[in-house]
Amino acid sequence: MTIELLEGLTTTRAIRRYTTDPVSEDHLSTMLFAATRAPTGSNRQAFRFVVLRSSPKAQEAKALLGSAFRSNWEAKRRADGYDETEPDSPTARVRRALQEFVDGFESIPVVVLPCILPRHGQLIDGASIYPACQNLLLAARALGYGGVLTGWHSSVEDQLKTLCSIPKAYSVAATIPIGVPKGNHGPVRRKPIQRLVFEDEWDQPAQWAMDPPGTRFTG
Amino acid sequence: MTIELLEGLTTTRAIRRYTTDPVSEDHLSTMLFAATRAPTGSNRQAFRFVVLRSSPKAQEAKALLGSAFRSNWEAKRRADGYDETEPDSPTARVRRALQEFVDGFESIPVVVLPCILPRHGQLIDGASIYPACQNLLLAARALGYGGVLTGWHSSVEDQLKTLCSIPKAYSVAATIPIGVPKGNHGPVRRKPIQRLVFEDEWDQPAQWAMDPPGTRFTG
Repeated sequence: MTIELLEGLTTTRAIRRYTTDPVSEDHLSTMLFAATRAPTGSNRQAFRFVVLRSSPKAQEAKALLGSAFRSNWEAKRRADGYDETEPDSPTARVRRALQEFVDGFESIPVVVLPCILPRHGQLIDGASIYPACQNLLLAARALGYGGVLTGWHSSVEDQLKTLCSIPKAYSVAATIPIGVPKGNHGPVRRKPIQRLVFEDEWDQPAQWAMDPPGTRFTG
Repeated sequence: MTIELLEGLTTTRAIRRYTTDPVSEDHLSTMLFAATRAPTGSNRQAFRFVVLRSSPKAQEAKALLGSAFRSNWEAKRRADGYDETEPDSPTARVRRALQEFVDGFESIPVVVLPCILPRHGQLIDGASIYPACQNLLLAARALGYGGVLTGWHSSVEDQLKTLCSIPKAYSVAATIPIGVPKGNHGPVRRKPIQRLVFEDEWDQPAQWAMDPPGTRFTG
């Protein structure tokens, strides 16, 4: 069953809970091929992708990441008041999903580290790596998988680079775990489009921009 | 005719030459809807999209951008030796396309300015805006259009922000022109995947990563 391009773009969710099903090498190759088809400045392709699966080295890197993810989540859980919500609320569901995500980090079948050689030391460097991250997530969705773009490796980036022999000059732009979703992909929730899309000037809503009927919004 | 997700990810080219055909408001709405479905850190959605079409304000902003693009191209053309190539070489074709792109910038039907409120002042801020830029380009491709992710607004970013009332705290992450391609989308050229995708450690090619038969490469 194939998914249509527009449908894929609007229904790819951040997936943080995975079954124990493996990711096939064939599918992994297709995902990474799709990732590397994304644009980079002047097609310079100063991006590289380090894939972690189940080798001893991969397990060591995943353990380092897992410990960083658990610390990050612990801090976020307190700072954002995740514990003070009703058990049935959407926030409580997110809390449980995140807890499961960090607790089981080491068993996620695939973790991809997208790396980039920064050129400007500015925001625009991201234009040569995050489109590829999005392609990777979309390709995962096309093949029945799911993943999530996270920055929680940042506190252990130097150790991670040493461990995986990533040159000092490169930045690890994200950590992207991938697996078979326990939940489902489907329409994502955002703010009403009139608050996100302007014409000509800031805060001047684009009259033609409309959320399709049935769109659900973030609170 | 719809395009399949994986096919779209691997065949969306940077399009810099456009016909004079307009971009319909309905299609534009669909593209921006798709852009805003991309992930952002903690689903914070600190992204905004300013769309420029043909109003006097849009024309003023496009003229400012056009002049910056022409200066950038002039500098790049000299620095990268574009003038010293054989007339029939691929580089000469790129040179002609870029010249046409900057010369006619003001007549490109749609120019999108994706903006982001930076949170960390680091590369990771790009993870909350460039996936949306990629979704925008992929949605354009799905609907028969094409565009290109550029950073050539940077030299006039402050003037552009003043002109379009973009708050000082936001960054204009890119300039994305969109129109009906004069050329075609199709397979893109990249380095061999073995040079881009590693397993466990830097420079350790992932054995399972393979370019599909018929893949063409950059020089």
